[in-house]
Amino acid sequence: MQPIITVMLNPVLDQTLYLDRLRPGAVNEADNGQVYPGGQGVNIARGLADWGVPVIATGVLGTENAAPFAALFAAKGISNRFVLQEGSCRSTVKLVDRTSGLTTEVNQPGQPIQPDAYAACLWQIDRLCQPGSLVVLTGSLPPGLPDDTYAWLIARLALHESRVALACGGQALMQAIGGLPLPFCINPNRQELAQAVGQALPEVRDVLHAALHWHRNGVAQIVVSLARSGALFVAEGKAWHAQAHGMIGDGDALLAGWLAAQHQRRDIEDAMRLALACSTGMLGIVGSHSPATSTVRDLAREVRLTRLPA
Amino acid sequence: MQPIITVMLNPVLDQTLYLDRLRPGAVNEADNGQVYPGGQGVNIARGLADWGVPVIATGVLGTENAAPFAALFAAKGISNRFVLQEGSCRSTVKLVDRTSGLTTEVNQPGQPIQPDAYAACLWQIDRLCQPGSLVVLTGSLPPGLPDDTYAWLIARLALHESRVALACGGQALMQAIGGLPLPFCINPNRQELAQAVGQALPEVRDVLHAALHWHRNGVAQIVVSLARSGALFVAEGKAWHAQAHGMIGDGDALLAGWLAAQHQRRDIEDAMRLALACSTGMLGIVGSHSPATSTVRDLAREVRLTRLPA
Repeated sequence: MQPIITVMLNPVLDQTLYLDRLRPGAVNEADNGQVYPGGQGVNIARGLADWGVPVIATGVLGTENAAPFAALFAAKGISNRFVLQEGSCRSTVKLVDRTSGLTTEVNQPGQPIQPDAYAACLWQIDRLCQPGSLVVLTGSLPPGLPDDTYAWLIARLALHESRVALACGGQALMQAIGGLPLPFCINPNRQELAQAVGQALPEVRDVLHAALHWHRNGVAQIVVSLARSGALFVAEGKAWHAQAHGMIGDGDALLAGWLAAQHQRRDIEDAMRLALACSTGMLGIVGSHSPATSTVRDLAREVRLTRLPA
Repeated sequence: MQPIITVMLNPVLDQTLYLDRLRPGAVNEADNGQVYPGGQGVNIARGLADWGVPVIATGVLGTENAAPFAALFAAKGISNRFVLQEGSCRSTVKLVDRTSGLTTEVNQPGQPIQPDAYAACLWQIDRLCQPGSLVVLTGSLPPGLPDDTYAWLIARLALHESRVALACGGQALMQAIGGLPLPFCINPNRQELAQAVGQALPEVRDVLHAALHWHRNGVAQIVVSLARSGALFVAEGKAWHAQAHGMIGDGDALLAGWLAAQHQRRDIEDAMRLALACSTGMLGIVGSHSPATSTVRDLAREVRLTRLPA
C-alpha cells in the first residue's frame, strides 16, 4: 500500500496541567502535567497509523522539543521525515480547574519558519510524492508563510499527480478553494465552511448546500463535522448525514477514519461509519491514544446514515 | 581553579507566555512564549559561569526536554555531566496578563527520579568531588527521594572532604541543618529561616539571632535574602546587614555572586557587594542572562554594609 503523506508546518506540543483551583495572578501548584505532541497533523497521522495505514510525516520541528514527536512517530510506526530548525515549536497550555471543571487554554502562533527549513521540507515532499499519492496538508500556517501557501502547494502537488486532503480553516482554506487546482478533500467544521461561503449555516440543509457548491466546483470529497449533529459527507455526487450516539469531538479523528477506510478500499458507507466511530470514540481520551479497535467497531455499527438530496 | 560543582535533581523549564488579558475558562491567544532552563541549580550555575568561575553541572534531566539545558550549558561553558532518564523534567508556566500586570504561575512537583538515574548521578558526584571541592546542592527534591536526601548527601560529601553550599528550603533544609555533618553554607530566605527555627522573624535582628544560632552550631556561612531590606550575612564569627538600592529579587544570583567572589579569593566584603549587585541587577532581566559586568560593578560600589553585633 502506498503510504499517506501528512504535512505539518506548525506542529504543537499540548501541555495539560491539572489544578485543584486556578487562582489568576497567584502562584498555583499543579499535578505533574502531561505533554503530548498535538496539532491536526499529528492527530491525523496518528489516527491513520492506528488504523493500519502506512504514514509518512513531514514538516518542520524545532530542535529543542522535537524529542516527544520523534518518540511518538517511532511508537506508532510513522515514518519520520521532519526537517529540524533551531528553537522550539509552539506549545498549547491547558489548565484544568478540578473545582470549576473549566479549562483555560493558552495558544501561541508558533515560531517563524526559516527559509532553509521550508526549502528542505518542500524537497522532502517532492521526493516522497508519487502519482496517486494522497498528501494531507494540515493545520495553521507558521508566521512567515502567506495565506496562499496551501493553494500554492496544491498546485505543486498536482504536478506530481498527487491528491491533497486539506485540513485547515480560515484564510488558508479560502485561498485553497478559491482557485485551481482544487484539493481532493476538505474537512471544514461548520464555522469554517460558513466563513468560506460568507453566510451562517444554521441547518444541516444549509451546510449541505454550501458543501454541494464546492463539490460541483470540483472538490471531490467534503467532510463537515457538525459537533452534536454528527457529520455531513459529500462524495461521488452524493451526500449523507451521518449521526452517532456521541458528539463529533474530534474533527481530526473524523478525517483520519474517513481517509483510512478509503485507503483500505472500503466503500464510502463503511468509511463514514469508521470516521464517526473514530471521532466519537476519542471523547474522553487524553494523550496519544486511539480508542480500542473493538470499541470503534461497536460504535461504527451504531452510526445512522441518511442520504440527502444532492 | 577547582571548578564548583552544582547538583540539581529536579530541574525545571520556565515557560513564560504573554497575553493581552487572561480569561480563565476560555481559549486565550498568547504571543510566542519564551522557554528557559530554570530552577535554583541552573540559575546558580549560570550566575557562577557568568562571573568567570569554572562550573560542572550534574543532576538528572529527562530525555524529552534536555535540549534547552544542554544548549545553555554549552553557551555558558558549563561542563554538562547530567544523567538522563526517560520522560521530561517539570515545567513552570507563567502567564503574564498585560492588562492587569498580574502573573499567574503554575508549578509542578516534577517527575519521580528513577533509581538507576539517581545511582548514576551519585556516581558522577563521587567521581567529580575532590578534597576542598565546593558542591552546591540546589532546589526541591523530586518525588521518590526522602526529605533527608541532602542531609545524607552532605555526609557522603564530607567523606570526600568536600564542602556543601545548600540552596533549598522546607523539610530538606531542616533535615540538613538538624544533624551532623553540617553544610558549609546555607542561603534560606527569611520565611525559610523562620520555618527552620519555628518562629516569625519580623526584624533584621530576629533574623540575625536565628542565623547566629546556626552559625554557632557549625554552619560556616549563612546568607539570608531579606527582599526589600537587602541581605544578611554571617561568616567567620561576624555578621553584616548589606543593603542595596534595588530589591533582592533573586536569591540564586545572591548566592552565586557570594560564592563566585570567594572562589576568586576576594574578601568577604567584596563578596557581599558582588552578591547584592548580582541579585539586584537581575531585576527586570528575563531569560538566561546576567546583568552587564559594568552594571554589576556600579551596583556593587553602592552597596552599604553594616556590621552587626555577633
